[in-house]
Amino acid sequence: MIRVTVWNEFLHEKTDEKVKSIYPNGIHKAIAEFLGKEEDMEVKTITLDDENCGITDELLENTDVMIWWGHMRHWEVPDEIAMKVKEAVLRGMGMIFLHSAHHSKPFKLLMGTTCNLGWRESDDKERLWVIDHNHPIMEGITDRFFELEGEETYMEPFGIPDPDKLLLVGWYNGGEVFRSGCIWHRENGKVFYFQPGHETYPTFYNENVQKIIKNAVRWAKPVYRIPELICPWMPRIEE
Amino acid sequence: MIRVTVWNEFLHEKTDEKVKSIYPNGIHKAIAEFLGKEEDMEVKTITLDDENCGITDELLENTDVMIWWGHMRHWEVPDEIAMKVKEAVLRGMGMIFLHSAHHSKPFKLLMGTTCNLGWRESDDKERLWVIDHNHPIMEGITDRFFELEGEETYMEPFGIPDPDKLLLVGWYNGGEVFRSGCIWHRENGKVFYFQPGHETYPTFYNENVQKIIKNAVRWAKPVYRIPELICPWMPRIEE
Amino acid sequence: MIRVTVWNEFLHEKTDEKVKSIYPNGIHKAIAEFLGKEEDMEVKTITLDDENCGITDELLENTDVMIWWGHMRHWEVPDEIAMKVKEAVLRGMGMIFLHSAHHSKPFKLLMGTTCNLGWRESDDKERLWVIDHNHPIMEGITDRFFELEGEETYMEPFGIPDPDKLLLVGWYNGGEVFRSGCIWHRENGKVFYFQPGHETYPTFYNENVQKIIKNAVRWAKPVYRIPELICPWMPRIEE
Amino acid sequence: MIRVTVWNEFLHEKTDEKVKSIYPNGIHKAIAEFLGKEEDMEVKTITLDDENCGITDELLENTDVMIWWGHMRHWEVPDEIAMKVKEAVLRGMGMIFLHSAHHSKPFKLLMGTTCNLGWRESDDKERLWVIDHNHPIMEGITDRFFELEGEETYMEPFGIPDPDKLLLVGWYNGGEVFRSGCIWHRENGKVFYFQPGHETYPTFYNENVQKIIKNAVRWAKPVYRIPELICPWMPRIEE
Repeated sequence: MIRVTVWNEFLHEKTDEKVKSIYPNGIHKAIAEFLGKEEDMEVKTITLDDENCGITDELLENTDVMIWWGHMRHWEVPDEIAMKVKEAVLRGMGMIFLHSAHHSKPFKLLMGTTCNLGWRESDDKERLWVIDHNHPIMEGITDRFFELEGEETYMEPFGIPDPDKLLLVGWYNGGEVFRSGCIWHRENGKVFYFQPGHETYPTFYNENVQKIIKNAVRWAKPVYRIPELICPWMPRIEE
Repeated sequence: MIRVTVWNEFLHEKTDEKVKSIYPNGIHKAIAEFLGKEEDMEVKTITLDDENCGITDELLENTDVMIWWGHMRHWEVPDEIAMKVKEAVLRGMGMIFLHSAHHSKPFKLLMGTTCNLGWRESDDKERLWVIDHNHPIMEGITDRFFELEGEETYMEPFGIPDPDKLLLVGWYNGGEVFRSGCIWHRENGKVFYFQPGHETYPTFYNENVQKIIKNAVRWAKPVYRIPELICPWMPRIEE
Repeated sequence: MIRVTVWNEFLHEKTDEKVKSIYPNGIHKAIAEFLGKEEDMEVKTITLDDENCGITDELLENTDVMIWWGHMRHWEVPDEIAMKVKEAVLRGMGMIFLHSAHHSKPFKLLMGTTCNLGWRESDDKERLWVIDHNHPIMEGITDRFFELEGEETYMEPFGIPDPDKLLLVGWYNGGEVFRSGCIWHRENGKVFYFQPGHETYPTFYNENVQKIIKNAVRWAKPVYRIPELICPWMPRIEE
Repeated sequence: MIRVTVWNEFLHEKTDEKVKSIYPNGIHKAIAEFLGKEEDMEVKTITLDDENCGITDELLENTDVMIWWGHMRHWEVPDEIAMKVKEAVLRGMGMIFLHSAHHSKPFKLLMGTTCNLGWRESDDKERLWVIDHNHPIMEGITDRFFELEGEETYMEPFGIPDPDKLLLVGWYNGGEVFRSGCIWHRENGKVFYFQPGHETYPTFYNENVQKIIKNAVRWAKPVYRIPELICPWMPRIEE
């Protein structure tokens, strides 16, 4: 069983009528619903308004893959909580950052950069082109591209380290491109950034988006976890 | 002095009125003209119709960076000539492949893949987005993107190994994206692929295109060249 | 079921008493034996002396992952057979190259380089250090390193493209280092190079070596296979 | 002129007789001395005991490449100073981290990982193998390797993101290997980590070490610098 925890800021779904109508129980519940149908996944949800943002040492120990959605309240996540999440990744936990989580504290800490980008909300159509059909995260996406009728527009340059592998590039009818699916390894943890998922569009009901998130959970699950991060003195091996 | 050799198939410029009007002396001469104005470059041109396609051991020994443009007659380059070019790169010569040279023999030999892509000639506009402003090949390109009023459309997936660094992504108004500027290291040689340059457009007169090709010549010039490619027996270092 | 085909040159095991005593039925049979015990694998072996080196279109269509061991007779593999293998990889077949297969034709074709290295047979001890414990190919290798009492010494520089991921670095008591475990993506196919496996040592009976080869088979199995390699004209998507 | 600033913790050279005898004026002055002889470089030194660790906005604005050596007092660098250095890199400043600076705050912030490793002080000999002779940082290093008679032993796994390019691998007679020369791009800035340089050895007088640091300064100098790090709203390009 892959133990998945979905973290959501859970703001817009409570305050914005349009968003509420799309995700009445919150984005986290929408994600948990489709993941929960997978036989090899066990899904939990937490939100920013939970005590400690819902994040405890115990939770992190018992999470194989965490999914993160945030937008306007990134800075309400305390630094020490963000650092805990980062360290859980370095010790082996898998991590998926969705859409505006490009500016979440844990993502920025793991990248070492600003993760800035250009952006605009103008109901652009996005067409996501597959760069590598053979990566496990792309399993089942066999066409050259898939489309989303509306998405927030994100554009290059995207202030990230070069991804270990670029999986998707987004085309927008407003005239932009964006590296929409990227992976990195960070010590013992795997990280996937996936750009779709603005709160005003039903993106998380899209079949291809769901397929990619499911695949990413399986790809990111730990191969190896270490109990603590150490820099040890080591004895001589050879005499 | 960087010794540059520009190789051109030189077919369309002799047979097609439109192409002839844009490049009356051939694409190779247009490229040689703007490179020749650089104080640190010394430029030579050769074409497919020269004896041995213009390529001899002596020429390769005396070329620091080769630029290659070809399209319809790739297969008229003999295999042993293509292999000679490949080996010159592995020994240290820099190499720039332009546009339809994605299907040239030396490029395919160096990549180890088909270098296939999707394509269409439909007078699309292309907008080239800069992924990394800090790479020496991008020096002087300070905006987020630059545009070409017309180009042949190339689209993903592009059958190349993951580039060592992705520099540019092209957006087309037809709805496509393409990795338009990519670099690779191949043993002692550096390789740059640059997608613009279809023969029916005045692309090689574009200021940004010229800037990038000049920068690429300087980036690709050899740091280290070896006289032959060997797999040597080596004595023990430690007793 | 993952359909694995093990290809072996099968020379030394018939002509050299020492090698024969270690691998009486050939290296291919030793590998097939430990892989054959895995419930998700179905293993076939072929050798250089089989008709067409044992390689037909039908075999390639029905192989998910091919394993290749060769040493002295690389050049007896006809070019067109080597090309068939390369193209099967580009269409999606996984491929594992062992030890001296660094100079096999299919590996060199896929890499685009000479794959040269420095070498010596002097009964050196090798210690393989794990660079990334979290990659699926390293699953179950939890120590910092593992050792092989004797191996042929291979040393840098190794004339390969930068691996998409470096998994192992070998230390030799003769004073050398070598990138001993490397992966690459080549269009739809995954490639793993693994340096241990000289014919005069019982390397393929080593528990860690077996673990890594088993993991590599699972990692390399196709996510996506395409029937043919094409470079298609594509219609406009946007009006 | 490349404006170089060398930062040093400057502790051991004042408190330890052995270190003082090797670097009587501090490691920073030893580095500044050989760099200062280069016609294209202008060198300044600062140390931890200077006001604000010597680091001001003005200094960062007027530094093209910063070199950092620290060991026991990393945590005396205030977080906001470390963050300033990191942001200067993201805006374009080049950065070279030497030896035990793998645990300095700016390096860890830029990497996003712990940068942990295994270590030991036991007068091991180190042999640095060149992985890529053709990178500008390796210019002039034409042998397969070079040696340092004594160095602190560092060993894998090294808790860094995969380098954008691996340049050197160290072999130690104690039995270890280490990725001794690595580069990364971090937004507009280039970063080089170079492992040699323990305070109890005369490493910074070694000709090859000096050559590599000089080359690295030239490689890391900014191609493009931006005044501030922003995440801008951008208007539609296409109607």
